[in-house]
Amino acid sequence: MSAKNVSDIRKLMEEHGYDAFLIPSTDPHQSEYVPDYWKRRQFASSFTGSAGDLVILKDRAGLWTDSRYFIQAEAQLSGTGIELHKMMTPDSISIPEYLLKYLKEKSVVAFDGSIMSETEFLEMKSVLQKKNIILKSSGINLVDAIWKDRPQFPDGEIFPLDERFTGLKSDDKLKSIREVLNSKNGKALVFSTLDDIAWITNLRGNDIKYTPVFISYLVITMERAVIYSGIEKFSKSAWEKISGTFEVEPYHRFEEDLHNLGGENDKILISGSSLTVKLADIIRKHSDVEVVNSGVEKMKGIKNPTELQGMRNSHIRDGVAMVKFLIWLENNIKSGQSITEVSAAKYLGKLRHQQENNRGESFETISAFGKNGAIVHYTASQDQNSPITGNGLYLLDSGGQYLDGTTDITRTISIGTPDKHMKKMYTMVLKGHIDLASAVFPEGTTGKQLDTIARKPLWDKALNYGHGTGHGVGMFLGVHEGPHAISYYRCQGVPLEAGMVTTIEPGYYEEGNFGIRIENMYITVEDSPETELSHKFLRFENITWCPLDNRLIDFDDLSSAQKNWVCNYHEKCLVTLSPYLTGEEQKWLETFIANE
Amino acid sequence: MSAKNVSDIRKLMEEHGYDAFLIPSTDPHQSEYVPDYWKRRQFASSFTGSAGDLVILKDRAGLWTDSRYFIQAEAQLSGTGIELHKMMTPDSISIPEYLLKYLKEKSVVAFDGSIMSETEFLEMKSVLQKKNIILKSSGINLVDAIWKDRPQFPDGEIFPLDERFTGLKSDDKLKSIREVLNSKNGKALVFSTLDDIAWITNLRGNDIKYTPVFISYLVITMERAVIYSGIEKFSKSAWEKISGTFEVEPYHRFEEDLHNLGGENDKILISGSSLTVKLADIIRKHSDVEVVNSGVEKMKGIKNPTELQGMRNSHIRDGVAMVKFLIWLENNIKSGQSITEVSAAKYLGKLRHQQENNRGESFETISAFGKNGAIVHYTASQDQNSPITGNGLYLLDSGGQYLDGTTDITRTISIGTPDKHMKKMYTMVLKGHIDLASAVFPEGTTGKQLDTIARKPLWDKALNYGHGTGHGVGMFLGVHEGPHAISYYRCQGVPLEAGMVTTIEPGYYEEGNFGIRIENMYITVEDSPETELSHKFLRFENITWCPLDNRLIDFDDLSSAQKNWVCNYHEKCLVTLSPYLTGEEQKWLETFIANE
Repeated sequence: MSAKNVSDIRKLMEEHGYDAFLIPSTDPHQSEYVPDYWKRRQFASSFTGSAGDLVILKDRAGLWTDSRYFIQAEAQLSGTGIELHKMMTPDSISIPEYLLKYLKEKSVVAFDGSIMSETEFLEMKSVLQKKNIILKSSGINLVDAIWKDRPQFPDGEIFPLDERFTGLKSDDKLKSIREVLNSKNGKALVFSTLDDIAWITNLRGNDIKYTPVFISYLVITMERAVIYSGIEKFSKSAWEKISGTFEVEPYHRFEEDLHNLGGENDKILISGSSLTVKLADIIRKHSDVEVVNSGVEKMKGIKNPTELQGMRNSHIRDGVAMVKFLIWLENNIKSGQSITEVSAAKYLGKLRHQQENNRGESFETISAFGKNGAIVHYTASQDQNSPITGNGLYLLDSGGQYLDGTTDITRTISIGTPDKHMKKMYTMVLKGHIDLASAVFPEGTTGKQLDTIARKPLWDKALNYGHGTGHGVGMFLGVHEGPHAISYYRCQGVPLEAGMVTTIEPGYYEEGNFGIRIENMYITVEDSPETELSHKFLRFENITWCPLDNRLIDFDDLSSAQKNWVCNYHEKCLVTLSPYLTGEEQKWLETFIANE
Repeated sequence: MSAKNVSDIRKLMEEHGYDAFLIPSTDPHQSEYVPDYWKRRQFASSFTGSAGDLVILKDRAGLWTDSRYFIQAEAQLSGTGIELHKMMTPDSISIPEYLLKYLKEKSVVAFDGSIMSETEFLEMKSVLQKKNIILKSSGINLVDAIWKDRPQFPDGEIFPLDERFTGLKSDDKLKSIREVLNSKNGKALVFSTLDDIAWITNLRGNDIKYTPVFISYLVITMERAVIYSGIEKFSKSAWEKISGTFEVEPYHRFEEDLHNLGGENDKILISGSSLTVKLADIIRKHSDVEVVNSGVEKMKGIKNPTELQGMRNSHIRDGVAMVKFLIWLENNIKSGQSITEVSAAKYLGKLRHQQENNRGESFETISAFGKNGAIVHYTASQDQNSPITGNGLYLLDSGGQYLDGTTDITRTISIGTPDKHMKKMYTMVLKGHIDLASAVFPEGTTGKQLDTIARKPLWDKALNYGHGTGHGVGMFLGVHEGPHAISYYRCQGVPLEAGMVTTIEPGYYEEGNFGIRIENMYITVEDSPETELSHKFLRFENITWCPLDNRLIDFDDLSSAQKNWVCNYHEKCLVTLSPYLTGEEQKWLETFIANE
């Protein structure tokens, strides 16, 4: 299928005189997860991962993705003629280097200016200049021309989120933003990042699977605040909520209005990385443009007390669903019922759905048994769906969206009898998790510095894992939220601050054998106040409640502090979840955690 | 005294129409330790620390230094009218901010262009523009005009370092540098950093205390290589060694020659951060100038096998001196002899001097008893010289220069009987040292990421130390050598690579009470080779041999791995040092390490 798509795109490239065409995985809003309408890279290449950029030349094609997707991409690209490029591995080549290597002097590389950020464009342009290669915005995206059954433009309903969940009125948020606008002498401040817009407006939507945002732009001036999304998508309550504060215009009206936003002496501000090549072109026709830090990313990242309480509350309900799932799994396996990766994930989704305030899942569940667990972002499907049976490790990474919070949890569960090696490796990963979860650190420390703590037990044995240790999480928003992260890989890190919410999720993967990951979510809180003599210290408050599998823990290999951590954690799971469990479920939980 | 110096400088400022004058602590070669000839800041302020910048305004003056020197600077500045500014503390103000705050619009800030780097100048200029403050090179340094008994210009002898120590001929080093020169189309490559010049030429000097470098510039073209230092400083063997490869010109001839180095279409390259405002002005009159990475810093940082073996060998001799010192200290205290901080440091210097290849100390010994140990860079002197007696901790941070290596070691020794709190804190620092010293980490990891490991035991109790965890060390060169470091404080870190040599030196300080620091030196070595499936891993090889004080270790508080580390380390100290100790000394060492 996709071999045909690639050759169809090549025909169009020839018609237009292009030597290369770039098909990144993003949308005009620089989203990580994009609506089906914009999944051009998936259509063109067959690769379904959330991250991966496709480059088509006349005689070769390549796809760049990260270690989470190496195994999956290899399988899905087989037969397409597209070569896999493994990012951040030794000898890997970057896309600009690839273009330099395989294209002749003065070749033409085309891209869709509506989805490429200006920063990326300028970086690539400067590299390609070495061979006088021309980087050209294509006007129309070539994929669209051959995409016959393209999904329709997202039309999910927009609904309001109450202040008892957001903790802050959108008027107050606008006030802060207008202070920035004023201090920078801007005529208008433009937002295109969807979670920023949802956070500012206290609205949520249904346009993207797993992330409750809505396709839109937001333009704020000192007098007006206009949401470009189309009024027809607004629920009655959403409209009532915002009218008077915001105006609403059709999505496709945005570009037209952008032309008329400022005059010759005006400066249009644009938030963060939102500036695409196309928007920059439009604005610069009439006014100056300046990329600014609107302060929204930080205000959104440092949750207010209401948001933090919602995160805590929703995690308790999420834990209840997880425990009910563990009981169901154990009972069904004991009684010989056939459970598969797909049926288990489906049942867990159902249990989450029964919880108060639940609005579905926060990402596609990774339900991976045995060797499938080694594929870091494995997706079970009709085509690849292993039964959960016999002896093996079951890796379950899932999360829920709730009106009062977003959750993300991974448990690795022993099916049958675990062998010594599995226990040894599970315990090693657990040690890293506990050491980081119980760390205390001075204010100013970045996630990159803390990452070391979670990896150390594995590093000590010259082992490692190829993904970040933790990521920020939104409040009923994206399950991945910046700018903070706990990651080895980011060039620079930002300091963690009290009120930020992150995952801690070290892992270990043996191809063809098993995968292990242990993930909880944590709020960064103050440990000790600043004094004249010493710095302020921070620590993590756990908010995820679901027992670990004691059968996989080699308690002799834990320090006494680590043993205490497990013991306390299980005790608190029992106390926190019991009020929401039946007597029988409580008993199961007591037995499950008593195996130490 | 210095109150008078400051007022004398103010008189000159008035004559010249300056509202502020900057007196940084560096020299024209951006040296960390500078010859007495250039210690203008010390002369003007009375503060003797190695780092500290002085700013004099008409009605106020400030000195900026880091946490190593807070206590010392407070004492030495008292009565001078100069305010201490503590760098990197909450609410601290930077020098440009200070100038902005206290100067009026269009004020004139003067500086000495021969010692200010162009980078620093441009940064400061852009800040001061906010108030239209003029930043102006003063031509002559105002301090020089009032400095009556200024020390003479350094005239130490220059001598050759044999290939059996350097492992690489200067011809081969020149070849690599000329490849860079050629690839960048430069007419000449200029070096002003003294340890770079010493490393390239395989020469050493005696111009700066503790660092065997010589005051010079080096200019390399495709045809010539000219050392600007003055031929009169060359020993006969040094001259014989380099003639044919290098030419030698007087130091003060450099500026004149720089005028004639290139024409209108030429590009003069200058290495690293060597470009001062004055040099940039001279070069730009005739040619283009480009700051480049000459590759020397990295070649110098990654030691070759000969250099590494020399570092290992010299550390054994240094360990012998240290053990002889510990024996002398114990015997003298037992027998009631009066030992002071100064007399102890002096005796240790004597013991080092008796070792083969020794060429003095690598920095000013920190010999600090009791509460003096809490002053991170304490210097005992005639004026402040505590007797080492009674109960207390004795912190001894010292190092030697040897023809085949540079050493740096800190031991904290119990005098009398240690109390519980001292043992607890010493053990905490030791845990951090051991955990980092025995760490394994993937290639690509920076010192900033590893720093976390050494601090974790202290962080866990909301404690910390205000200095870096480790620094690079030269081979018979500077005891501080970049670009690698193990530091919380650097903005970005460079990855550690096999062949680099660093210290590991966590500490803990209680003002008015005691100081603890435990420092060894380590070579970064390969732990496991790269395979298709996994990254290359690195680890540290210890090269410092001197026992720790078991009386300060709470062995019950160590993990079994940590206990083993101490045990193995002491066992290896005995095996490594014994061939060079008398029978009696060996017996002492056996007893000293047997207290576990």
